[in-house]
Amino acid sequence: MTDNVQLLGISNAIVDVLSHVDSTFLENIGAEPGSMTLIDLDRAHDIYNRMGPATEMSGGSVANTIAGFANLGGTTAYIGKVRDDQLGRIFNHDMKSLGVDIRLPKAANGAPTARSHVLITADGQRTMQTYLGACLELGLADITEESIGAPRAILIEGYVWDIAEGPALAKRAADIAHAAGANVALSLSDSFCVERHHESFSNFVANDADIVVADEDEVYALLGMPGIEEAIDTLERRETLFAITRSEKGSVIVRGDEHVIQSATHVEDVVDTTGAGDAYAAGFLYGLANGLPLGHCAQYGTHCATRVIQQLGARIEPGLLDDFEVL
Amino acid sequence: MTDNVQLLGISNAIVDVLSHVDSTFLENIGAEPGSMTLIDLDRAHDIYNRMGPATEMSGGSVANTIAGFANLGGTTAYIGKVRDDQLGRIFNHDMKSLGVDIRLPKAANGAPTARSHVLITADGQRTMQTYLGACLELGLADITEESIGAPRAILIEGYVWDIAEGPALAKRAADIAHAAGANVALSLSDSFCVERHHESFSNFVANDADIVVADEDEVYALLGMPGIEEAIDTLERRETLFAITRSEKGSVIVRGDEHVIQSATHVEDVVDTTGAGDAYAAGFLYGLANGLPLGHCAQYGTHCATRVIQQLGARIEPGLLDDFEVL
Repeated sequence: MTDNVQLLGISNAIVDVLSHVDSTFLENIGAEPGSMTLIDLDRAHDIYNRMGPATEMSGGSVANTIAGFANLGGTTAYIGKVRDDQLGRIFNHDMKSLGVDIRLPKAANGAPTARSHVLITADGQRTMQTYLGACLELGLADITEESIGAPRAILIEGYVWDIAEGPALAKRAADIAHAAGANVALSLSDSFCVERHHESFSNFVANDADIVVADEDEVYALLGMPGIEEAIDTLERRETLFAITRSEKGSVIVRGDEHVIQSATHVEDVVDTTGAGDAYAAGFLYGLANGLPLGHCAQYGTHCATRVIQQLGARIEPGLLDDFEVL
Repeated sequence: MTDNVQLLGISNAIVDVLSHVDSTFLENIGAEPGSMTLIDLDRAHDIYNRMGPATEMSGGSVANTIAGFANLGGTTAYIGKVRDDQLGRIFNHDMKSLGVDIRLPKAANGAPTARSHVLITADGQRTMQTYLGACLELGLADITEESIGAPRAILIEGYVWDIAEGPALAKRAADIAHAAGANVALSLSDSFCVERHHESFSNFVANDADIVVADEDEVYALLGMPGIEEAIDTLERRETLFAITRSEKGSVIVRGDEHVIQSATHVEDVVDTTGAGDAYAAGFLYGLANGLPLGHCAQYGTHCATRVIQQLGARIEPGLLDDFEVL
């Protein structure tokens, strides 16, 4: 017996602080170009004080996917921790305004709402310095039969493993979801994140996840070997459905013997590649939630990713998918 | 004896909250398309709760001009009131990161930092619903010889007249500036604002302003008559320098007998016209501060306006003017 929620996300609730920088800036703060680094409040203040004017918008990987899924017309819910401050109210507003059911109250005290300093260089690459703040206080106590409910599927973010109680709360969420008849999807988030938590990730993928969404580097980190052919050979022997994005090389879906090789849509003017994977996941999972064949799901994912890289920011603007033949 | 500040701005310190809406939304909230309306906190909450996902970025008309002037390489200072909350810290950060010298401390209590809900319809038009919050607490006590210093010029925003002590503080600022040898510039802000405060505006323009920057509708509201030819005939008999923007019809500068008729640059893809006037003022005043002839100042203004309408948001991105031959 499910409730009417098609997808419930569990992830770090983050506001992005976007700013253009030159490569010298990254050198000066000692940041690896293209990486995502977790930072403490002192370093967050230091980086913010050094960086130029910024634009603020709600972000967070799986939160972006949930917003995209809601934009497509899907029913969604969300578990993530913000503080009751202005950034937290902005984050919750942006979700609620899309119809996302927010399951946790804002924290009345503790660390401020998380923000990720997204440093964009002239080549369009993004380097993220993320202060997790209130996210670190997401805990086992927040994952209950009441907060999860009975959705058709849940989607957990790999970055949740960076929270102290993350692995335990992911496990509890998977158990509650499975008991309620829901599928459990995992987004691998980031290849460095996979490496940081390799054993725990591997166990979760083997024992708890029904669906894994990831880019190829994350899959290679998980399997401990590179090469898409080799990955397919390994993954087709598993029960888990894998949806693997490969940037301009398209995407690959593997569910046992069933493989889909989906090409990417050529885009003349890429504005900003951030959020491509999150948007792909939104489209793919939306297709899946609506019982479409895997090939159609891959097309949905590709369409959403194609759209999001033609705009600034990781969340698909409402209406941007209106021209697509939705179910 | 001036200090090294070329332009000091006095204005409402506002964070823009930008969101796309359809025309039904404007009807439902009873907003006149294209207007700027002042709203109270209850209505701000109501509108925010109804509107879709948003992007936050620092705004405010003269604050945008100061940021643009700083981007051009000018030395700037700023007087405006924010609360010590997250939006206030964002506003101050965005100014400071451009080298703007912030002259007032953040308010430790009182109303929260101002925000303007910028509702963008499909035709690119913007309707603004502005909650002034902390701005309303800017007062005479904030305008002192110390906070003004000895800049080359000050720029006051017409919207300041919407603050209880606005007309009085504008007068005090003009007196302190003149005593320090600075020029006094006034931005007329908005034709409705001119109508709201017509007598006080007219007196200030006649007695206190050395420079007026405005669009043609604002000038017609001030003079009580339409028609650019008629306006030029009237304004050439005054001491005050008028810089008048006319959208795609270009701009007109009048300083006594000296007239400049500047054509606009044709732009194929206008992204967002907001901030065109603010950016024009930045370029124009920057040229003036550097002793350029009026024709060159008008070209600077045009270049900045042309750039800002090719991006989303009212503040010129750092680096966007790099290809322009700056002094």
